[in-house]
Amino acid sequence: MSRQSNRTSDSKKMNSELFTLTYGALVTQLCKDYENDEEVNKQLDKMGYNIGVRLIEDFLARSSVGRCHDFRETADVIAKVAFKMYLGVTPSVTNWSPAGDEFSLILESNPLVDFVELPDNHNNLVYSSLLCGVLRGSLEMVQMAVDVRFAQDTLRGDNVTEIRMKFIKRIEENLPAGDE
Amino acid sequence: MSRQSNRTSDSKKMNSELFTLTYGALVTQLCKDYENDEEVNKQLDKMGYNIGVRLIEDFLARSSVGRCHDFRETADVIAKVAFKMYLGVTPSVTNWSPAGDEFSLILESNPLVDFVELPDNHNNLVYSSLLCGVLRGSLEMVQMAVDVRFAQDTLRGDNVTEIRMKFIKRIEENLPAGDE
Repeated sequence: MSRQSNRTSDSKKMNSELFTLTYGALVTQLCKDYENDEEVNKQLDKMGYNIGVRLIEDFLARSSVGRCHDFRETADVIAKVAFKMYLGVTPSVTNWSPAGDEFSLILESNPLVDFVELPDNHNNLVYSSLLCGVLRGSLEMVQMAVDVRFAQDTLRGDNVTEIRMKFIKRIEENLPAGDE
Repeated sequence: MSRQSNRTSDSKKMNSELFTLTYGALVTQLCKDYENDEEVNKQLDKMGYNIGVRLIEDFLARSSVGRCHDFRETADVIAKVAFKMYLGVTPSVTNWSPAGDEFSLILESNPLVDFVELPDNHNNLVYSSLLCGVLRGSLEMVQMAVDVRFAQDTLRGDNVTEIRMKFIKRIEENLPAGDE
């Protein structure tokens, strides 16, 4: 049995709390390491990006989701399959732009922020920035450049968490010379 | 509905891969921050300890496990309930010391190390040290001082991962004066 199929058949389902607290330790460490919240947000996003470019392979193997035909289908797969698989929640997909190139994921509950209260001196911390990076990185690996940001955050007193996603462009695959 | 009962009823089951990769980002960050592997191990253990002292409350609420009567019962609860709940795996409990104060948890598979290969220059890194801290911290909150360390590690070429746990002492509860 190859390593890949081994891994695929061997998925472990876990409660989210250990992940939540470990993520908290990561954010706390970055707050010690960097001078300001903006820099921490940037680092979290960058880490998430690196995670996303690796996680997509696991996702494609595990979900057997095929190529999406449009951004609406992508939105549904992210919400109903990917979030469910890796965070155990299913956000709703709403607030489509008229052009169909922009939508929001609304999370009633964000597992990353259980147990968390932002200290007063971190007003600009976008605590869950890692998620933006994960989405950006994984979508880039399937040839989609997408802008991802938090529009609302329960940690900042909003009623829900809203992740806004905007399609930028399709990334051309660099095919080896000679291929079609 | 109180916050506690809300949280308890609202457990999210997730696949382990996002957690695994996020933990990897944490270890990588600490390797940048600290000069040597021993210091990184110590930090991971410390973070784990802080996680454990918080996670135990969630565990007791969610598992409805009562007070354990001896260390053997504790070992079974850790392996069959806690590991299963928070990491999705069930280690076996073996290698009991004759005095019954020491045992090993054997993990056929350690979710923290999926995707991971240790670089050559990190020979002394005990990658999953966080787990030792989590066990130590959570047990301390139920009045047990326990020494926890890795005895084998698949990342270092061993066939299994072995966590060795040694009971040190029961911690006296400091009851307020006047109480029984």
